[in-house]
Amino acid sequence: MSSDFFRSIWVDAPAGTRQLDPKDLAPGFRAGGVACGLKGDGKTDLGLIACDADDVSSAILLTKNAAAAAPIRVCRDQLAQDSIRAVIVNSGNANAATGGQGIKDALAMREAAAVVLGFEPTQVAVAETGVIGVPMDMDLILSGIDGLAGSLSAEGGVSFSDAIMTTDQWPKQCSVTLGGVTMSAQAKGAGMIEPGFATMLCFVQTDAVIEDPDVLLRAGVGESFERITVDGQMSTNDTVLLQSSGLSGKPLPAGLLEAVLLQLAIEVVRDGEGATRVGRIEVSGAADDDEAEMVARRIGNSPLVKTALLGRDPNWGRIAQAAGAALAGSDIGELGPDVIEASDLAGEAPEAELSLKLDRGESRAHIYFSDLTHEYIVINAEYTT
Amino acid sequence: MSSDFFRSIWVDAPAGTRQLDPKDLAPGFRAGGVACGLKGDGKTDLGLIACDADDVSSAILLTKNAAAAAPIRVCRDQLAQDSIRAVIVNSGNANAATGGQGIKDALAMREAAAVVLGFEPTQVAVAETGVIGVPMDMDLILSGIDGLAGSLSAEGGVSFSDAIMTTDQWPKQCSVTLGGVTMSAQAKGAGMIEPGFATMLCFVQTDAVIEDPDVLLRAGVGESFERITVDGQMSTNDTVLLQSSGLSGKPLPAGLLEAVLLQLAIEVVRDGEGATRVGRIEVSGAADDDEAEMVARRIGNSPLVKTALLGRDPNWGRIAQAAGAALAGSDIGELGPDVIEASDLAGEAPEAELSLKLDRGESRAHIYFSDLTHEYIVINAEYTT
Repeated sequence: MSSDFFRSIWVDAPAGTRQLDPKDLAPGFRAGGVACGLKGDGKTDLGLIACDADDVSSAILLTKNAAAAAPIRVCRDQLAQDSIRAVIVNSGNANAATGGQGIKDALAMREAAAVVLGFEPTQVAVAETGVIGVPMDMDLILSGIDGLAGSLSAEGGVSFSDAIMTTDQWPKQCSVTLGGVTMSAQAKGAGMIEPGFATMLCFVQTDAVIEDPDVLLRAGVGESFERITVDGQMSTNDTVLLQSSGLSGKPLPAGLLEAVLLQLAIEVVRDGEGATRVGRIEVSGAADDDEAEMVARRIGNSPLVKTALLGRDPNWGRIAQAAGAALAGSDIGELGPDVIEASDLAGEAPEAELSLKLDRGESRAHIYFSDLTHEYIVINAEYTT
Repeated sequence: MSSDFFRSIWVDAPAGTRQLDPKDLAPGFRAGGVACGLKGDGKTDLGLIACDADDVSSAILLTKNAAAAAPIRVCRDQLAQDSIRAVIVNSGNANAATGGQGIKDALAMREAAAVVLGFEPTQVAVAETGVIGVPMDMDLILSGIDGLAGSLSAEGGVSFSDAIMTTDQWPKQCSVTLGGVTMSAQAKGAGMIEPGFATMLCFVQTDAVIEDPDVLLRAGVGESFERITVDGQMSTNDTVLLQSSGLSGKPLPAGLLEAVLLQLAIEVVRDGEGATRVGRIEVSGAADDDEAEMVARRIGNSPLVKTALLGRDPNWGRIAQAAGAALAGSDIGELGPDVIEASDLAGEAPEAELSLKLDRGESRAHIYFSDLTHEYIVINAEYTT
């Protein structure tokens, strides 16, 4: 995967960006993964990233789902501070819908990781993904954390990526360098874990000097993970974490974070449940930004558009229908092929670039989305509990 | 179908309601259907209902889709008046995305029907469903309308129902009597017509005296066709028409219109594309009515909940996830089986009654929805243009 990283569809890194081995973390960071037994099949399921620099700069974005899981609730307390030095992640149990005990367990997990690292508990973020409504097996977690402490390495990026996968078909990861700074990143997508929640996690490390990580991360995620949809479902556990050791002493080159986040976001769509193709719908001429995004999102989430993407059917009528539904109550006329470009749907390429030109203003927005396939139904209907 | 009409899931007619043969229209109405050749396979594809009473009372509801089709645009002009005496319907061509010519054709269709009936054109509604983006073959339509004039009959309900079907698997129709009044109704559902739009149409006739048909129809549709979802997609052509001849001289018994509309609405879900089961999600304890409906709709449109309905997976976590996503930004705690009833999902029955109790207020709402199946994907992806 990593060798053709920036040759993937649609993503251009800033000129001069050079790829490193994805196992190589940004200077100042160590990571690793172990099999603590949550998955029970010998697969690694517990990962840890730690920054050795004292003055780490960080930002974290968490799901807005109103029924958020315990680790999200624990991490919300850390939103105000920007010195998250480590993150402990398990991929066997989402620790969601686990009540007060779930909160205690997430705090205990954070505490244990802090102890082995010599950090303050508030400097450690917790992310979890897997089954929901099942109590955590804290014996496995805590002995796993003990084992992790000795396995951390500056070349632990791949081990960590593997440890956070659920039913992802491939790890999403990269390590790049530009302008004297390095950036490494790992993500997991919406692989389905019985019986319930999909979770998107993304971790980014850099040795660039970052003054305002919150603003930077929010802007980057706004153009990447907030521009994708697999099935329109918001997870209870989604987390994106950016950490900077600052060890390079150099500023972050423009566009690097955005390219890395976008690459991983598109990888998540490509590896979405049952996905075989990725579409990009660009809506222009909208009255304002919110409207542009709303229309694009409605099109990307339309099961009729998603099945047309699968069926290679250049069916512009479905785009017109979804746009009309999104703008219900107003009148946008009868949209036809003069304003809808849908010919890519019929192509054999794994990507399809679609566009809709409205005549309501100057705003535009785009959304990346996957097709809706039999495999999606197999994954979500036939593997019952 | 008709014999067990009111024994269908969830629908109770008012006590004493008696079923008539679905071909029998309410007194004062005649209907019929012919094969004008739009479908080209000898199937009937042009239907007409006319009311012989001069002082017909009527109400019409039209899709709010912003890219509405030509017949919707023509009928919008009739929204203000309550004397629609007839409706002409074709099931071969949606006359959508057909531009100015489409409007002319819809007006010509209306004019032709008015001429054969001796009505004013503004007393005739037009509904169309079928392929989109294809010019109307007006020769076929106009000669079909000539043929229709002689075929109208008080026993034409079934002929009309057949003529408005697209890929519906069965006609949706009924005729009932209570309190000295008769009500007949015909509907068609979201059968897919290549290459594009699904359309829901419903026509109701009664000889009851109705003073305020708009208010009555709006209330009835609010509890029936606005409570269902197959795939969350709003059509460009949806139309519901209520007509009363007033010939019985009696008032409409309470609950009769609501029961008929709800029955037909649930039939539409049952016959939704690929549907094998119908779910009913009831959300209670919401902060207000809008919130209750929004949450229920989000659950009913969730592909994860829809595949759980198919897979007979009592997966309450997916309901929690959808509710949490619907209320993103607020905090509703971790919803668990104490507030979510999802056991019906696992049953073998064709219906599943689900509920979610929130703790935010006193409002409640429910939505009927179909499952998401392989057949949905086959219909929408594999039958390409």
